[in-house]
Amino acid sequence: MDGIVRKGIAFDPKQLEEFDKLITKKGYSNRSEAIRDLIRDYIVEHKVSNKSYLAIATLTFIYDHHSSDLHKALTAIQHDYDIVKSSLHVHIDHNSCMEVLIIEGKVSDIEALSGKILSTKGVKHGKLVLTDPFNNLV
Amino acid sequence: MDGIVRKGIAFDPKQLEEFDKLITKKGYSNRSEAIRDLIRDYIVEHKVSNKSYLAIATLTFIYDHHSSDLHKALTAIQHDYDIVKSSLHVHIDHNSCMEVLIIEGKVSDIEALSGKILSTKGVKHGKLVLTDPFNNLV
Amino acid sequence: MDGIVRKGIAFDPKQLEEFDKLITKKGYSNRSEAIRDLIRDYIVEHKVSNKSYLAIATLTFIYDHHSSDLHKALTAIQHDYDIVKSSLHVHIDHNSCMEVLIIEGKVSDIEALSGKILSTKGVKHGKLVLTDPFNNLV
Amino acid sequence: MDGIVRKGIAFDPKQLEEFDKLITKKGYSNRSEAIRDLIRDYIVEHKVSNKSYLAIATLTFIYDHHSSDLHKALTAIQHDYDIVKSSLHVHIDHNSCMEVLIIEGKVSDIEALSGKILSTKGVKHGKLVLTDPFNNLV
Repeated sequence: MDGIVRKGIAFDPKQLEEFDKLITKKGYSNRSEAIRDLIRDYIVEHKVSNKSYLAIATLTFIYDHHSSDLHKALTAIQHDYDIVKSSLHVHIDHNSCMEVLIIEGKVSDIEALSGKILSTKGVKHGKLVLTDPFNNLV
Repeated sequence: MDGIVRKGIAFDPKQLEEFDKLITKKGYSNRSEAIRDLIRDYIVEHKVSNKSYLAIATLTFIYDHHSSDLHKALTAIQHDYDIVKSSLHVHIDHNSCMEVLIIEGKVSDIEALSGKILSTKGVKHGKLVLTDPFNNLV
Repeated sequence: MDGIVRKGIAFDPKQLEEFDKLITKKGYSNRSEAIRDLIRDYIVEHKVSNKSYLAIATLTFIYDHHSSDLHKALTAIQHDYDIVKSSLHVHIDHNSCMEVLIIEGKVSDIEALSGKILSTKGVKHGKLVLTDPFNNLV
Repeated sequence: MDGIVRKGIAFDPKQLEEFDKLITKKGYSNRSEAIRDLIRDYIVEHKVSNKSYLAIATLTFIYDHHSSDLHKALTAIQHDYDIVKSSLHVHIDHNSCMEVLIIEGKVSDIEALSGKILSTKGVKHGKLVLTDPFNNLV
């Protein structure tokens, strides 16, 4: 944050009491911090509903590392799109691997890449998380 | 609201500017109102994740009114649970009806009733909305 | 359904066993029915992500019926958009009402109307459910 | 998959046609594969709604690496819970880092750890993805 601005907000006393209890339980020590997090989430959700927005994302998926040619197929898809910035590979057990891709690009391209990977034979379960890159995250 | 309490909240100026623009677009004329709505949603979501919480819900579903005995089956399910308070029936076209049930009860019972109805043959698509009853909604 | 077509689908035996257990628990008596429901949900979710799609929706919201002029404001909004087909009003307690609107129109218009209503002072909590109208629901 | 079992499933011809078009667009080349993915997602969602289930998760979050003592605080939280298996750090720009944690443990512990981290001052935005570990993923 570049500086801070303090504003008076009108609360319902009962709501404020419940909110303070809940955020303490979640781990917050500061009410303003919790409110800024709610606002940030609300703004990011709106931004990434725009298919042409430049977002950052992680795609988590689990795959069977015995599937023939799967690794090669996944690599080919990633090169086709050229928006994968890095990846983390986790060996889970004898059969399964988890892979996390860090992706930067237009929401429409991120979703297309994600669709391609999750629909590949041998990829078992996955989820996409879209967030905001760089200094756009206010 | 029984009275109002005004509190100073520390904002990031850039975040506040984006938030104000977004809520104006969504239709808000008042920043405090928008923040109270974000907080209320956050609290309700937490409450209804507790299966024994007494919630209020609407179940929306679409069904084919030609399915034999469907109406009778749906009525029987609703009587079994005895938590449906009222319902709205909408004639959509020659084949389809939309029904909205207003349900009050424990989250676990609401989810069980919802599962039974959505799994009934002839019920085509539906969604459950859980919210908070009575004066609990702060 | 106009007729039925039977297709052979390749399953993993362990997955099939878990799926059969889960759908029985949810209330299904028929595996094909459960699969058709998963597919329908997947198709509807895709359709209503298109802002120009003609959808049907329910908007559930709770409001304080003591708020001055709220009823008049809500009626004005609904007339501005002219896509609300019917509504259900439920008296919850001395202070609160639940209202369910049945809406038909373009997804973008439904979302704009929903934003306007949920941002109105006195409207406490609400959720939008988008589904598919008419005979489009396969 | 250990072997395969082929079952006849009754489809609505119109639904099947729309489904085939949609999965082709998403990148699938095989209808059974797409159906197994829908089923797997449905099963996983049910499992991880159980707070005592042993799940695997990724927590993605973005933080300001200038925040004093943030790195130390995040490390302390991770050690308190002792369920973080590995992590990926991505340098985004002069101010921001993205971190992805791979977590294995009870859903309730994963959610508590996630709450602690996301509520830490300086952590800007984050999301949790719960999936299924090991050979449980059918």
